[in-house]
Amino acid sequence: MEMSSKLLEKAVSEMAHLPGIGRRTALRLVLHLLRQPQGQTESLADALLEFRTQIRQCKECHNISDAACCEICSSPKRDRSMVCVVEDIRDVMAIENTGHYRGLYHVLGGKISPMEGMGPHDLTIGSLVSKVKEGEIRELIFALSATMEGDTTNFYIYRQLEGLPVKLSTIARGIPVGDELEYADEVTLGRSIVQRIPFEGSLKG
Amino acid sequence: MEMSSKLLEKAVSEMAHLPGIGRRTALRLVLHLLRQPQGQTESLADALLEFRTQIRQCKECHNISDAACCEICSSPKRDRSMVCVVEDIRDVMAIENTGHYRGLYHVLGGKISPMEGMGPHDLTIGSLVSKVKEGEIRELIFALSATMEGDTTNFYIYRQLEGLPVKLSTIARGIPVGDELEYADEVTLGRSIVQRIPFEGSLKG
Repeated sequence: MEMSSKLLEKAVSEMAHLPGIGRRTALRLVLHLLRQPQGQTESLADALLEFRTQIRQCKECHNISDAACCEICSSPKRDRSMVCVVEDIRDVMAIENTGHYRGLYHVLGGKISPMEGMGPHDLTIGSLVSKVKEGEIRELIFALSATMEGDTTNFYIYRQLEGLPVKLSTIARGIPVGDELEYADEVTLGRSIVQRIPFEGSLKG
Repeated sequence: MEMSSKLLEKAVSEMAHLPGIGRRTALRLVLHLLRQPQGQTESLADALLEFRTQIRQCKECHNISDAACCEICSSPKRDRSMVCVVEDIRDVMAIENTGHYRGLYHVLGGKISPMEGMGPHDLTIGSLVSKVKEGEIRELIFALSATMEGDTTNFYIYRQLEGLPVKLSTIARGIPVGDELEYADEVTLGRSIVQRIPFEGSLKG
């Protein structure tokens, strides 16, 4: 779509660089801003700029953070002997929202995927292994996605940690709460039978 | 979704003010910016700010414009005796993209809609009538949407112009090119029979 205004054209092109936003959607968003008070556009621009320029990576867990050390790692209320290994910061948010976990996290920054050119050295595995070697961590919970890449990454870390006195676990895979059995995929259903848990355990959480 | 970083929280909230963008999508977009060079966020913020603060309304046609008078109104190549009346600036772009129109436009800024509290005085009808009274315009083409509000607006303008020496027309309504008759709605199909055109006319355009 050709635009007569260069200002509009530029705003739409920049907006359309965002993933999942085409030129038509970008145009709709930009014209929406035009109908709103100027302050809204200013707040949006400021918030994006501040976020992008001031956000840091927590030196402990590699989560994003406003300070050198993130709120979770610096909280005295968290259990420092337990570390949950996740792919990215969205996983941290998802687990935090459950309210069921009080330990710390370690954000890998992705998973091993030769197809996407991601090797172990592109991830924060080295710093995880050093942290475990310090000896404070008693349990490491793998919470990567249940894909081949996720399993490969789990296994790679497992090999790096062999011989160290740390308990390893993974989050439970199974039928989601509320789902009907007949619609579950075979692999998940199969695993949920093989990895069944004592009935009393199912009453927790 | 609770976020540990205030910078992230602010960026996501601002992004989620845009129509059709929920907090989850906003988070995805903001985290995407984090993975891109800082320059991309800077260009986006600048483009939005520049657009919002510098864009103007063309004093002739009320289209958005970088200058006091838009490119279309100030172009010597356009036919100044023909004015196409549209609801908003997106309609101007849509018609411009067809490449079939070389006249000028008049952007109403909406249509008469008592339900949405839009009366004739909220639109640029007054300035359209004055322009017609100046006598340079020979034909006015109504290109509003074919809804009750669109028809009401057409009729209101028609009454305002009664007695003035200007030809009025509306864009053709009918079966879209490439559509199968059996799937067309009855109203459109009915109109397309009543308002049929000479066969030679259908070979144009």
